[in-house]
Amino acid sequence: MSGRFITFEGGEGAGKSTQVKALVARLREQGLEVVQTREPGGSGGAEALRDLLVNGDAGRWSPMSETLMMYAARANHLEQVIRPALARGAWVICDRFADSTRAYQGAGGGVTGDFIEQLDQAVVGGTQPDLTLVMDMPVEAGLARTVARGGDENRFESKGLAFHERLRQGFLNRAATDPRRYRVIDADRPIEVLTQDIWATVSAAFPALKGA
Amino acid sequence: MSGRFITFEGGEGAGKSTQVKALVARLREQGLEVVQTREPGGSGGAEALRDLLVNGDAGRWSPMSETLMMYAARANHLEQVIRPALARGAWVICDRFADSTRAYQGAGGGVTGDFIEQLDQAVVGGTQPDLTLVMDMPVEAGLARTVARGGDENRFESKGLAFHERLRQGFLNRAATDPRRYRVIDADRPIEVLTQDIWATVSAAFPALKGA
Repeated sequence: MSGRFITFEGGEGAGKSTQVKALVARLREQGLEVVQTREPGGSGGAEALRDLLVNGDAGRWSPMSETLMMYAARANHLEQVIRPALARGAWVICDRFADSTRAYQGAGGGVTGDFIEQLDQAVVGGTQPDLTLVMDMPVEAGLARTVARGGDENRFESKGLAFHERLRQGFLNRAATDPRRYRVIDADRPIEVLTQDIWATVSAAFPALKGA
Repeated sequence: MSGRFITFEGGEGAGKSTQVKALVARLREQGLEVVQTREPGGSGGAEALRDLLVNGDAGRWSPMSETLMMYAARANHLEQVIRPALARGAWVICDRFADSTRAYQGAGGGVTGDFIEQLDQAVVGGTQPDLTLVMDMPVEAGLARTVARGGDENRFESKGLAFHERLRQGFLNRAATDPRRYRVIDADRPIEVLTQDIWATVSAAFPALKGA
């Protein structure tokens, strides 16, 4: 079967990275070529832009500059990694993609949805994800997990609960626009339960996987 | 009198930097506050993006990524330097601005004019230059001067004569759209003659300068 493009989205602390790894392993067990990647980043130029975005003073970039840098990085990532992989039939599993720009810089940062969609049409165009898993959990729970994890890159964590509530609602609103592409996953459950639920969701979305 | 925003545009080797300095000095002699700046760059974040754009492999970025990075840098430059300066009544003299994106990534690189104008409306908006001096000269002469100068940042120089012909035509076509804002300066003349011609052009555009 031909390649598919699956993205994971959601706020901080929802366990996206863990579940990306688990899904990639499961798909590889089926004999598929799987490219595991992430945004911002995922290609040489895009990772250099990621460094500019996540390092230094959190107030360095306005939401408008961030949006443009995210789409500059996304163009690079699509050209160098995602489109070549899909073209040769690989599956691409990406930790964050355009819906994070819609949520963080749009719903959270105030950049208009119309402007983001203009960029998305020019940069992503027809390379929209086949399936997007929105890892959803209460904001307090997600932030507590993030703090416990002791991660760096805490520029977003510093923005307060109200910002993260807007993010969460942004992801949920987006998911509601297209139930065929989006699946909201209740992420406030044990890792093993989530892994099982996500596999059930993915294999239902791509029935050819079941018999593989 | 209130601040004004003047940009210099044109291909390589046209003597923009020299003439920017001369105009800045002349305006300061009039007792004006003058901010001399450049693009890409001109502010902290924008200079960091400039480093990404001009260093490394010339083929690292597609024209689409370059366009988005240029406007991300421009947003930062406008927010942190240009708009505050104009708001306090300073004159801003900028070595390259949005018309270079239109010429290099648009006319030269194939990014559509419609897309660049969408970005320009969102990022530059009402902060359009009051006067743009297009330093025009035959491509061969400009490249010869650039080579003689022995400059680095030779990513653009490596693109060949046909690219630079498209650039030149891009600048001239743009200038023709708005003769009130644009002045095409024949840059293939001695430095002192150019300095004199540019001062005559600027003081004619802003009559209050003459009596200062």
